[in-house]
Order: sequence, then structure tokens, then C-alpha cells
Amino acid sequence: MDCMDRKEDASKDLLSEVKILIENNKILDLRELLEEYHIIDIFDIMEHLDEDMKIKLFEVLPIDMAASILEESDVEFFSAIISKIDIDHKRNILELMSLDDMADILSQLEEDEREEIMELLSQEDADDVKELLFYEEESSGGIMTTGYIAINKHVTAKEAIEHMRENAEDAETIYYIYVVDNEDRLVGVLSLRELITSRDATIVEDLMSENIISVYVDEDREEAVRLVSKYNLIAIPVIDRQQKLKGIITVDDIIDVMEEEATEDMYKFAGTSEHEREAVEKVNPNPKEQIISSVRARIPWLIITLIGGLLSTLILSNLDFIMNPTYDVLVFFIPVVIGMGGNIGTQSSALTVMALSNKDLDFNSVVREGIVGFIIGILCSIIIILVAFIFIKDISIILVVSISLFINMIVGSMIGAFMPVLLKKLDVDPSIISAPLISTVLDITGVIVYFITITLLLSKIV
Amino acid sequence: MDCMDRKEDASKDLLSEVKILIENNKILDLRELLEEYHIIDIFDIMEHLDEDMKIKLFEVLPIDMAASILEESDVEFFSAIISKIDIDHKRNILELMSLDDMADILSQLEEDEREEIMELLSQEDADDVKELLFYEEESSGGIMTTGYIAINKHVTAKEAIEHMRENAEDAETIYYIYVVDNEDRLVGVLSLRELITSRDATIVEDLMSENIISVYVDEDREEAVRLVSKYNLIAIPVIDRQQKLKGIITVDDIIDVMEEEATEDMYKFAGTSEHEREAVEKVNPNPKEQIISSVRARIPWLIITLIGGLLSTLILSNLDFIMNPTYDVLVFFIPVVIGMGGNIGTQSSALTVMALSNKDLDFNSVVREGIVGFIIGILCSIIIILVAFIFIKDISIILVVSISLFINMIVGSMIGAFMPVLLKKLDVDPSIISAPLISTVLDITGVIVYFITITLLLSKIV
Repeated sequence: MDCMDRKEDASKDLLSEVKILIENNKILDLRELLEEYHIIDIFDIMEHLDEDMKIKLFEVLPIDMAASILEESDVEFFSAIISKIDIDHKRNILELMSLDDMADILSQLEEDEREEIMELLSQEDADDVKELLFYEEESSGGIMTTGYIAINKHVTAKEAIEHMRENAEDAETIYYIYVVDNEDRLVGVLSLRELITSRDATIVEDLMSENIISVYVDEDREEAVRLVSKYNLIAIPVIDRQQKLKGIITVDDIIDVMEEEATEDMYKFAGTSEHEREAVEKVNPNPKEQIISSVRARIPWLIITLIGGLLSTLILSNLDFIMNPTYDVLVFFIPVVIGMGGNIGTQSSALTVMALSNKDLDFNSVVREGIVGFIIGILCSIIIILVAFIFIKDISIILVVSISLFINMIVGSMIGAFMPVLLKKLDVDPSIISAPLISTVLDITGVIVYFITITLLLSKIV
Repeated sequence: MDCMDRKEDASKDLLSEVKILIENNKILDLRELLEEYHIIDIFDIMEHLDEDMKIKLFEVLPIDMAASILEESDVEFFSAIISKIDIDHKRNILELMSLDDMADILSQLEEDEREEIMELLSQEDADDVKELLFYEEESSGGIMTTGYIAINKHVTAKEAIEHMRENAEDAETIYYIYVVDNEDRLVGVLSLRELITSRDATIVEDLMSENIISVYVDEDREEAVRLVSKYNLIAIPVIDRQQKLKGIITVDDIIDVMEEEATEDMYKFAGTSEHEREAVEKVNPNPKEQIISSVRARIPWLIITLIGGLLSTLILSNLDFIMNPTYDVLVFFIPVVIGMGGNIGTQSSALTVMALSNKDLDFNSVVREGIVGFIIGILCSIIIILVAFIFIKDISIILVVSISLFINMIVGSMIGAFMPVLLKKLDVDPSIISAPLISTVLDITGVIVYFITITLLLSKIV
């Protein structure tokens, strides 16, 4: 039996145990049980409890755990809980919440509900949250937190450790300490590792590294991901254009962004959107909601491809030779000739889109893809000649089909690589290219290639 | 001007400065310059130097930086460097290298080259590396390192801090300290944060958390990724089936795995392989090598889809009605009718494959996709009726085309969702499903649906 099952069984056991304790109102036992578990596991269980039990369990939690639960929650969960608990308890819990998570949730609340929460915060926290709310979700500012430890460059290592100990509770990470000058500009960084292995009297300025990897608050959050990944960081400082330290982004938030973006690329490539991703990946999905968001997300692409498909129809309807009874077998090869161009084109475009996200490519990559198409095209043409020869004895037809297939595979692979490179050069995000779009474009070019090959070759032969 | 440009310009400046210093043999200046830069930036520069300069620069580096450079390098880079430096220097550098990175590189070396390196290691390091080499690349053991800090549960907080300070240099992370019993079994974990904020005399056993999140050494590395991501960890301990601590996996290695796996899914979905990914994502690609690996990776899928395509040909060749001159326009709609099934099927299958990687789905999701296909199918049919009506006055043809399109979109979306769910139930990895495969399968079903619809409707009408 594998480990996954074991863990899931354990969480089912916990769930039923929790239910029994709540039903029997055994508060102390419940609290004792919960303290043995990780906050994430408790959160998982709460998602499977009904509203009443959820509130009861929440009220039993020590306030630091309650705050952590709210940090993990989405906006519906947050609203449901927060409206039910009394105001002093609420204030204490909010006080302990991590401000970036709070800002994320508040940004999704209605105006009046948001105001209500803001009024419960301390002035300092309220100001920080207001600032965090200001930044775009996709920017570095949008995922940063203000829970960092900063010290002045003139203090000693001993003073720094003391400051760190005092402020550890509010900090998201204590493993990096950020060093600022008298104007709050970021001038250095010090790992806890360095601090702890240094002598007490050393001045921080002499210990710190001045080689700081940072992002600007208005830069894309993907830049933060790139830097944390490249330089193996546990957190990255976020500064404004005056070099002032505004926040940090910790590696767990970077991982969340990576997960979002990884599946985002696949969704885009499949020809759907962010919107559908959210609905599908929800823990407790609502089927009706899922269907609506699926339909909404996919319709734009499908209408575009439908129109593209009708263009193929229009082109084919001008192809007289196909209706010549002598050559009617040419019709039967339409799906395979245009389909193979689409297949190799899908491969090329996916590859090129992904390569472009890491580095720049020039039009040489289009030529390289053309060569790949050339080699594979020859191979596939040989196969089709051999197979066709079993059924059809007419050499001219076999010739037309295999030459069209060959050309189509070269065209398909080159267009598949060309489109993303062109978009990138035009400063458009190449990841808007989807498999359905590529298929449709290559259906059209495929029909044109077939059309031209038939016209040229058969008119010569006939 | 954006930040990316600025950073790239800076690295170009550094590159030319380094070249000038090496050419003029200004060793001291070079060393001073390099010490200001991050190891990753120096590594980037080395990749752009020729062999001789690369060696010269490497010899100038302090040994800790030299060891870090080798940790970042791939096997070719490692071999090129290591064969050129003298044996004592080599031994000192290897001594400082992180053992998981060393094991990764050694696993790719030839037998005799590997033996040669192993002989330079201390007995302890050699044993650790041998053990690391033993684990599968895709297992947790395959990405773990032995550079962790472990203490006995009976020591005090003060002793623990001392032990940590002494061993900090060899440790990949000092932010978690692992607590073991007298038999080396993992019994608890302690964050440096907790340790540093606790009183000196406290016994570690009373401080530690017993709620340990760990992976088994033979478990899939994706399980480690899932746990680190879910529980927001900076490192995860790796144990054997007797609960003995064998190593740790740090979050930076988790991020590397995530990056690999994220693009892996896209490559698979596009119908290519791991092999092509490696060739395309190399920093200094060799075009010939790239073309060969592209051809090799794509041919299997393209041959399968070619055979599938020929099946469509075979089916179409049995379709008599299509050759009836009265209904020859039906031919023109082949690409759009079968293409739209493929498009919605591609969307459904990508979505289902991704959803399956996070949670289990049952065949209900196939029904849900069918409903999505139904709704979008109605819409697309209406569009095609309106458009077709402009050109064609024959109602029976318009009816056949729109009904086929409608059925095809339902069938496409259901098959797209059905295939991955079925594979998962059969314990086959659903991610073997690729866009070209789905397109081809849906070309075949599309032709069959068109065939049946035409036969049924037109035979009634005619």
C-alpha cells in the first residue's frame, strides 16, 4: 500500500474523531487533539465540515492557529467564519494574520465588508494592508509581505540578534535579515546563518553582503520567481525605484506562483483560460459553476477555430479537380494530409513557446524546425507511398498525396515555430498560441498546399 | 528600459572585463572583481568563455567558490574542468562540494572517470556518494543530500546550537535541525527559529515538534514536491522504511524539480519527450544535436498519428454518398466538422490530465464535459447553419453538416475527458495523452460520425 493512501486514511480518521468530539462538546479533548496536527491538515478537515461544526472547531483553536487557518482560506471560507465570531476574538486573530494573505483576501471582499475588517486592524497594519492592496496581483508587490526583519547598517551583530528575537513573531522569515541605511534604502543582506556564526561586536555593515538580488515592487512576479529559482533564495527583497525596502517575497509564495503559472501554460496551450483553471482546480467544485466557466472560457477559441475551419471549406469548394471522378480518391486523403501538418506544427509551436519563456530565439529556430519537418516528412511520405500502393495503383495520385504530405509537414513545423517567434518580436506574449489555433491555421495552409499541389501536378499529368 | 535588460547588460560588461583581465594576466584584480559577484553570475560568464580562459578563471577562484561552480555545472563542464587542474587542488575542491550535486554529476560519468574521482574523496564522503548513487533519479533518494544537521533528542538547546555552529559549513540548510533517537530514527524536528528563541537549558526533546512531515527514500520525488509545497517547508527529511534519517531535500532542489516537471507536462502534451526537452533547453545548444533529438523524439507520435490518419482515409473511401454529385459539397465540410471535434477534445483532455494530477476524478467528469460539448456544440451549429445558408440553399446538406458538427463536439469533449480518466483507472500515467494523439483519434471518430450521419439522414431524404 502506498504512502498517499496511508496519509489520506489518517486524515479520514481525524475527521471522524473531530466530528465525534464536537458532537459531544468535548472542547478540551478536541483542542488537545488538534494541537498534535499540522495547521494544513486541520484546514483540510475544516473544508469537510458543515458550517456549524466549522465555526465550533474554529472557536476551539488557539488564536495563533486560528490566524494561520484564515491565512490558508479563500474568500468564501474567510467570510463565513469571520462573520460568526465575536469582535474581540476577531480583532486578536486578525492581529496575528500575515498581512499579504490578509490583503489577498480583502481584495476579493465587497467594499463594505473590507472596510469593516480594516477598522479592526491596528493603524500600522491597516496602513500596510492598504499599501499591499494597491499593487497589481501579477506584480511583485502583489505577492510580497511586509513581515520582514530590517536593521540599520550601523548596529552590531549582538544588537541585530536581539532585534531579530524581538521581532521574530511578526516575521515571515527570520533567515534573512535586511540591512538598510538611515533613509531606509536597502544596502545589504545578512543570512541568519552568517549572523549566528559571527562575533557579537562586529558591525553589521562589515558582515553583510552588498551583492543583493532584489526585485522592484512594480516588476512582474515572474521576475521574482526567476531570481529565487536561479539564485536558490529563501526570500527575495522587494524595493521601490528609490531603492527603499518595501517588502519581501518568501519561497513558499514563489512555489505557489510557480504552480499557478505551470498549469496556466498548459491551460493556455489547450485553448482555454485562467477562469476555467480556477473552477476546475477548486477543492469542492460546484458542477454547474464548472460547466458555465468551461463554456465561457472555451467559446472564444472555438468560434475562432470554427471560422478558420469554414475558410478551409471555402478553399476546398474551389478545388475542381477533387470532384473529377478519376481523382475522387484524393478526397479520402484530406484528413491525413492536413492532420499531419497540424500534428508536427503543434509539437513545434509548444516547443518554441516554452523555449521562448527561458531565452530569446531568432528566426534560425524556424529554419531548424523546417529541417526537422523535412526529415520526418520524407519518412512519413515513404510510409504513405508504401501503404497507398497496396490500395491504389494510380501513380499520379500517390505522387500528389505523398508530395502534399511532405510539403505540409515542412510548412507545419515552420509555421509552428514561426508564429511564437514573430509574436515575441512584436512584444506579444507567445503563450497566446494554443493547440486548437495551430491546428486550425494548419488546416487552412494544409488545404491550400493540397490545392496547389493537385492543381500543378494533375494539370501537368492530365 | 526594463530591469531584465539592465541585468543582461551588466553581465555582458562583466564578461568583457573578465576577458581583458585574463588576457593581461591580472590575477589579483580578477579575483577581487569576482568576489563581488554571485556565484551564479560567474557561472553564467564561464559558459561564454573558451576552454583555456575557463580553466584560467576557475584556477583564480577561492576553493569554496570553485566548489560552488562545479555544483552548478553539467557533466561536460565538470569533466572539462576537472581533468585540467592539479590533484591537490582538485581534492580540496571536491571536499567542499555538496554531495547530492556531486552524485548527480558522477552518475553521468564513465565508469573509470567516476572511480578516479571517488578515490579523491574522504572515506565518509565516498560512502555517502555511493549511497546517493544507488537511488533512482526520480525517487526522493535521488534528489536528497546528506548535508543536514541532526542531534540526539537528549541534548540541551545550548548544546544543539553549538553543534549546529560547528557543522554549519557542511550543511545545506541550518534552518531545520533534525532530532533522532539513539538508533538514528527521526523522532522530531526543530526550526532554528524555535531553537534560537528558547532557553539554553531546555532539553531538545521538549522543544521539538513530533509532527514530522517526511518522505521515504524510495518514494517518487513528486511526493516530496507535493509535501514541501503543501506545508510550506524549506526542507523535508528523507527516511527509510525503518524511520532512519537518510537525508534531506531542500526547497531549491524542489524548485528545480518543479521546473523540470512543469515543462515536461507541456512537452508530453505536445507529443514529444524528455529527450527533446533537454536538447532544446540547453544553454549552448548544438543545432545538429537538437535536430537529431527532435526527430527521434517526435517520430513515434507522428507515425502513430499517420497510421490513425490513414484509418480516416479508409473509412472515407467507403463513404459512397460523398461521391454522389448532388452532395459533393459535403466534402468541403470535412476539415471543419472533424477539426472542431479535435479542438474541443484537446481542451477537454488537457484539462482532465491536469486535474488528475492533483486529485482523483471519476467518470462524472466525462458527463460534465459532455454537457459542455452540448452547450458549445449548439452554439457552433447555429453559427454554421447561418453561414452555410448564405452559400448553400440545400436544407438537407445544411442539416447533415450542422448535426454532424454538433454530435462531433459532444463526442470530442467526452472522449477527450474519458481517455485520461480511463488510463488513470488502469493505473497508466494519463499524461501520455498528447494533443496530436487526441486530434488523430478525433479525426477518426469525426469521420465515422460524419459517415453515419450522412448515411442515416441522406438515405432517409433521398
